[in-house]
Amino acid sequence: MGQPLKTNRPLSLGLFGFGAFGQLVARELADHFEITVCDPAYVGAVLEDGRAFTVRDLQETAQADIIVLAVPVARMAHTCEQIAPHLRKGALVIDVGSVKLAPMKAMADHLPDHVHILGSHPLFGPQSAADGLKGRKIALCPLRGHRSRITERFLRQIGLTVVVSTAEAHDRDAAMVQGLTHLIAKVLHDLGPLPDQMTTVSFDLLRQAISMVKDDPPTVLHAIEAANPYAADVRASFFKRADKIRAQFEAA
Amino acid sequence: MGQPLKTNRPLSLGLFGFGAFGQLVARELADHFEITVCDPAYVGAVLEDGRAFTVRDLQETAQADIIVLAVPVARMAHTCEQIAPHLRKGALVIDVGSVKLAPMKAMADHLPDHVHILGSHPLFGPQSAADGLKGRKIALCPLRGHRSRITERFLRQIGLTVVVSTAEAHDRDAAMVQGLTHLIAKVLHDLGPLPDQMTTVSFDLLRQAISMVKDDPPTVLHAIEAANPYAADVRASFFKRADKIRAQFEAA
Repeated sequence: MGQPLKTNRPLSLGLFGFGAFGQLVARELADHFEITVCDPAYVGAVLEDGRAFTVRDLQETAQADIIVLAVPVARMAHTCEQIAPHLRKGALVIDVGSVKLAPMKAMADHLPDHVHILGSHPLFGPQSAADGLKGRKIALCPLRGHRSRITERFLRQIGLTVVVSTAEAHDRDAAMVQGLTHLIAKVLHDLGPLPDQMTTVSFDLLRQAISMVKDDPPTVLHAIEAANPYAADVRASFFKRADKIRAQFEAA
Repeated sequence: MGQPLKTNRPLSLGLFGFGAFGQLVARELADHFEITVCDPAYVGAVLEDGRAFTVRDLQETAQADIIVLAVPVARMAHTCEQIAPHLRKGALVIDVGSVKLAPMKAMADHLPDHVHILGSHPLFGPQSAADGLKGRKIALCPLRGHRSRITERFLRQIGLTVVVSTAEAHDRDAAMVQGLTHLIAKVLHDLGPLPDQMTTVSFDLLRQAISMVKDDPPTVLHAIEAANPYAADVRASFFKRADKIRAQFEAA
């Protein structure tokens, strides 16, 4: 887990959203920050291991040193509007959405000039980070203010590989990376049950890949398939190529 | 690698075919058997590490205690016809083809009654077994004679996981396992270059899976895509499901 940030007091972190990914944030950052949770869907904020976090209303949670927005991409603009009046000067606001153009536009449009803004996409989830963060990747897209460097350093310290990017470059790559994985997972899902004994190493890898994404919640699918402006093009390319291969087989 | 078989003298092994898989057989079994190679495409039989094997003509090679047929599936019947008159009584003949119905029919049709016959499909290749056989799988389909049990024991001894099956059950599973892996690899190949930095764990597994099969030789592709009687059905299901998903996206 690395060392906690060296400050006189632990920095406060306001976590908006206590869904699957919000819980992962709480689990991994509990040793480093004083975390407060705001999520109207949860009465308490308790992890599977029993650790409980302080729950506060939106106004109080928004006054932390660091704000993490672990809300669905579709809720980002609304959340930014709501928290904007309560944010401290110099606070750092970070989102964790699976796309970056739309959430970062929402943050740029609705958050006040006096906060630092950083877009992030943790390229892992509850399944792939079940054993911790070591070696997992996170994309960072700096947007406003100078606190992205210290954030990057901290993320490396807790074991992450940081990939710095623009929102556009991120979304182009993510459209392939996540779009193709989910598309293939969907196609294979209904062919199942897939063999699990008489398998090659490559097929086992394929099965492992699709098992990691098959339980992704609808909000993540929406981000990957609809909120990413490049997703439709990637799908079109995939189906075009599949058609070409089918034609080759039919001609053979 | 386990212990060599305990016999008074090492058993002789006649290896037909010194292509990529034949070389893997030679590399892994050199400590256990006295290997002789027959492959008209090779003047000598030398591994990358410099180890050389005795090369003999078909007639001499066919007189070994164990015969391994590492020839293309399409050459199996012809090879069986050619070696049949020279096989010793009680010899064990094993093939290593990626399908089992056709090669085992060829062996049943053309090999004499006085030999033991075993169909096998090593579910690995030069890439997936680059670091050795430990944990790799092999399908075994006993056909004639009682020497399958001792073979199975030996294969476990050298680190393999043995999956015993019928030729039909094998081919049904292999149609999905290898057919789908290759189909997906083909579809993704032309979409490339795929992102390699901004990647999720599941996408890295997907890339690793397709990189393992992308260099498979045409003879292996033929076995998987044409010689497997269930391959066309698996492809049809894949494309049908892909069409359904495309329609869902287009309607959304």
